Amino acid sequence: MDEAGFKPLAAARVAIVGLGLMGGSLALALRGHCGEVLGFDVNLESLAWARAHGVIDHTVTLDAALDADIVILAAPVRVILAQLADLASRKPPLHPTLLLDLGSTKTEIVAAMAALPAGWHAVGGHPMCGKEVSGLEHAESTLFRDKVFILSPLPAAAPGARRLAEAIVAACGARALLLPPEQHDTVAALASHLPYVVAALLVRVAEAADDPAVWTMAASGFRDTSRLAASDLTMMVDILLTNRAAILGTLDDYRAELDALSALIAAGDGAALRSFLEVAQNRRRRLFQPPPGA
Amino acid sequence: MDEAGFKPLAAARVAIVGLGLMGGSLALALRGHCGEVLGFDVNLESLAWARAHGVIDHTVTLDAALDADIVILAAPVRVILAQLADLASRKPPLHPTLLLDLGSTKTEIVAAMAALPAGWHAVGGHPMCGKEVSGLEHAESTLFRDKVFILSPLPAAAPGARRLAEAIVAACGARALLLPPEQHDTVAALASHLPYVVAALLVRVAEAADDPAVWTMAASGFRDTSRLAASDLTMMVDILLTNRAAILGTLDDYRAELDALSALIAAGDGAALRSFLEVAQNRRRRLFQPPPGA
Repeated sequence: MDEAGFKPLAAARVAIVGLGLMGGSLALALRGHCGEVLGFDVNLESLAWARAHGVIDHTVTLDAALDADIVILAAPVRVILAQLADLASRKPPLHPTLLLDLGSTKTEIVAAMAALPAGWHAVGGHPMCGKEVSGLEHAESTLFRDKVFILSPLPAAAPGARRLAEAIVAACGARALLLPPEQHDTVAALASHLPYVVAALLVRVAEAADDPAVWTMAASGFRDTSRLAASDLTMMVDILLTNRAAILGTLDDYRAELDALSALIAAGDGAALRSFLEVAQNRRRRLFQPPPGA
Repeated sequence: MDEAGFKPLAAARVAIVGLGLMGGSLALALRGHCGEVLGFDVNLESLAWARAHGVIDHTVTLDAALDADIVILAAPVRVILAQLADLASRKPPLHPTLLLDLGSTKTEIVAAMAALPAGWHAVGGHPMCGKEVSGLEHAESTLFRDKVFILSPLPAAAPGARRLAEAIVAACGARALLLPPEQHDTVAALASHLPYVVAALLVRVAEAADDPAVWTMAASGFRDTSRLAASDLTMMVDILLTNRAAILGTLDDYRAELDALSALIAAGDGAALRSFLEVAQNRRRRLFQPPPGA
């Protein structure tokens, strides 16, 4: 126990509420690093599958899950918001409890966390990883390894809660990055939500052409640029609806760039086109390169 | 010799004019499938490197290259257009010669090919493969394997020229697809040029935010969606300038989709958003899947 009454992670009972790709992967990653991994899901088949395949130690009811030392909400954002509204109407926990979520947007979730009764020590969380497939059967313990895991601790959370959240991040092999929820959402609109949108629009435009030769000619460039269009829609719609202002601002910026490029192409000025595109080329070539000496 | 006087590929002297990623890879792929692979490049260092590393059998002058049985132009589109203008001003070849190019757009190139003197039997070509790196040092013999290789034979070309072009495609392990040049360019605008543009604009918008957290948060989704932004600019500017009408039309369609999505997000209608995005998800999930039973 630390000064606020938190058990260390190694002794804590961790309840994961929502056993999809993210919750299931976190359960697998945490096994062996904590006292017990408990699992709850409204889908009884997922719950049984998780238990049968060793994803979790025990299945529990929602009430029992909320009585764990650490409660992790792993669901699409609007489901998490409904769960937080439900939690706010319940009795406070009997002991100090870390509440962490894995939702893709943070401003609305952290605002809802602030309305919880005392005893809940809440930390917003968002691991920067995923797949274009969803569901428990795609879960893997290594999903978070070497990934950035953003944490937005509430000001009211005890320091021990933040340390415990950081221990969870470390246990699954990720790197913690502390960000205020508003900055998270502004940055995520650019780094994560805009890539999804441009991929989905690309596929819609190509589909609308209704020429099978498009799919015959589509090679690795189309494949990679469009990959995110296959993402889970429940997750993506929740993201678009709970980060509207930031995403709409980003789409305005994107439209302005599109207009500028169209004008350069129409003008036929090769040197100006090259300068315009060079900004993107330079930045992209600096990204995702192995560090010197690696 | 066939009826028009073409040697079979196995006996033909093939000259590759332009030894970059594409020309170098084609040279490597054709060695052993033809009589000799001759190479020409205005860059003498590339030429020496190609000879020293066994990419070609012999280096030749441009005049000697143009005297081969098969001449392949492998350069950015506007360089090919200049080469075709130069060819049109020269004396016709002494024997029937297959002229094939590897340029990324076809309408302007095939129009320029139509102006060549008799003796040139021209076929427009475009292998649907590439890398986001350029240059001879990245060439590999397997670049074309299992890829689509588009051919646009000129009506005036002898049937033997088309068969020879198809033999080249087969020899490098690709699959030939015959398309008229205008259809090639319309389809390539969607399947190839638009993916590049949306990737470049994505990186420009993210770069303009000037927040290092963007690059910390950017994960595999951003990486894949933006990959093409690192493409060779000489190649891309030539594509944008020689396929302007089709690309501008495609960008107009893209802008309309962007406006429609922005309106749906602003309206906050989750069901309508889901339907809009489902079109893209369904199509993308059907693409790039292994065929049943594979």
